[in-house]
Amino acid sequence: MKTVMLLHPGEMGASIGSAIVANGYTVLWVPEGRSQATRQRAAAAGFEEAELLDALSRVDIVISVVPPGAAIQVAQQVADGGFEGTYVDMNAISPRSASQIATAFSDYVDGGIVGPPARETGTTRLALSGPKTDEIKALFAGSFIEVVDLGIEIGTASAFKVGFAAWTKGSGALLLLICAYARSAGIENELFEEWERRGMTQKAQSIRAAEQMAPKSWRFGDEMRQISDALEDAGLGIGFFLHAGETFDRLAHINTESDRKLSLEEVTRELLAGRSLRDPFD
Amino acid sequence: MKTVMLLHPGEMGASIGSAIVANGYTVLWVPEGRSQATRQRAAAAGFEEAELLDALSRVDIVISVVPPGAAIQVAQQVADGGFEGTYVDMNAISPRSASQIATAFSDYVDGGIVGPPARETGTTRLALSGPKTDEIKALFAGSFIEVVDLGIEIGTASAFKVGFAAWTKGSGALLLLICAYARSAGIENELFEEWERRGMTQKAQSIRAAEQMAPKSWRFGDEMRQISDALEDAGLGIGFFLHAGETFDRLAHINTESDRKLSLEEVTRELLAGRSLRDPFD
Repeated sequence: MKTVMLLHPGEMGASIGSAIVANGYTVLWVPEGRSQATRQRAAAAGFEEAELLDALSRVDIVISVVPPGAAIQVAQQVADGGFEGTYVDMNAISPRSASQIATAFSDYVDGGIVGPPARETGTTRLALSGPKTDEIKALFAGSFIEVVDLGIEIGTASAFKVGFAAWTKGSGALLLLICAYARSAGIENELFEEWERRGMTQKAQSIRAAEQMAPKSWRFGDEMRQISDALEDAGLGIGFFLHAGETFDRLAHINTESDRKLSLEEVTRELLAGRSLRDPFD
Repeated sequence: MKTVMLLHPGEMGASIGSAIVANGYTVLWVPEGRSQATRQRAAAAGFEEAELLDALSRVDIVISVVPPGAAIQVAQQVADGGFEGTYVDMNAISPRSASQIATAFSDYVDGGIVGPPARETGTTRLALSGPKTDEIKALFAGSFIEVVDLGIEIGTASAFKVGFAAWTKGSGALLLLICAYARSAGIENELFEEWERRGMTQKAQSIRAAEQMAPKSWRFGDEMRQISDALEDAGLGIGFFLHAGETFDRLAHINTESDRKLSLEEVTRELLAGRSLRDPFD
């Protein structure tokens, strides 16, 4: 049976790796430089510890599930390590980035994950595309992860993820911006009332966006810039997703380890304060 | 009773003027340079024809209801004509533009209309702000148009309109862009299926956005740029609404006189073709 290396088991990665372990495969991971939370997740999922360069010659498949801003660097490490098997990038990156990463490997499968970390069937789908999707599909047979085969072209799976995330995250950024604007202009209550009287659910959606997105915003900024590249490459212009990225950047300093949900008021205040991890004067 | 001049009676303006006529006021309009459709609307509404410079000395109130891109020019004409009464700008412009226009008049009321042209009660609200809102409120007593008094500051009524339109039109532009992207990437059906299986209504919303927004896109581009200015002035960054404006610009050549509804497929094709009225090579 094939051996898989998973880089790196965050919550999503751990659920991907668990599905593979459940099918009887050996899954290696690389503890060097990872957090205590990651170590606990990896141990609980039954992954085996390995040293990156040492293990690359022993594994058949490397799967990358990392924050979008780290995808190219991780791929580079694996390519530099002389890996000769199949590299699968499942990250939220543009087709442009996927194609760029693909050039470093003789066998590459493009992937995109839609939904939360899988703990039951029906929530999470893994889009795959490229010439060797069958090899990767087999890892997930009968698991919580439903595979969607999008054909032989590298980039299609990433485009599917771009299209899906563009609405869920783009509309969330838009709502948070509008709420911040309404607050600064002193018409927040009037706007909420206007939405409500028209049967529009945007207030509840904004509250949910603040709760759910702010703690993940440290990785959403980079994802928005990948989506921006994708739309730009399709000739559709730029602006929306650079602004969405900047919006999430302004929230990125919020502690991601905290389980405390953020209120819409806290989030709009942070947006108006304009703090940004990318701001050199912060 | 006071005399009102209405510049210019499009569908929205005619419904505003009709409410004032129904309250017994004389409403003048300026036929010079207007279309046959506008003439018919004005006659049906009971407006009286006038010549701009001649009539400005006779009217107490001038109300501007024009496409956002024409708001400043129309205000300039009225100011240049030596108008000394109360000028009311009800257009979809930024607080910045409202403040700029206000400097040309001794009495200025800021307005913003939310909802469709009023043909019944409960659909359409007119936000007003500024030191003299009472004078304007009185024009609409008991009419289909519900007035929302937002206080004495010029800009607040425009901000309310900005906040409301930012979602209705901004989210429409975002959906149309995403659908165009999905089409270009060959994952349109897969995205629609993914939305549907998650109980998301974005496909239906996209179809509605194409039908309802494309024919009005010739004036939405300028409105998006006004919204962009408003958010920028609030320190919230730029990008979303410049991109939304460019998106509507790409649809602006579509015939606005046609009653034919546009399909999502037609709209996404136009967006991908990238034609723009603002493109000098078009």
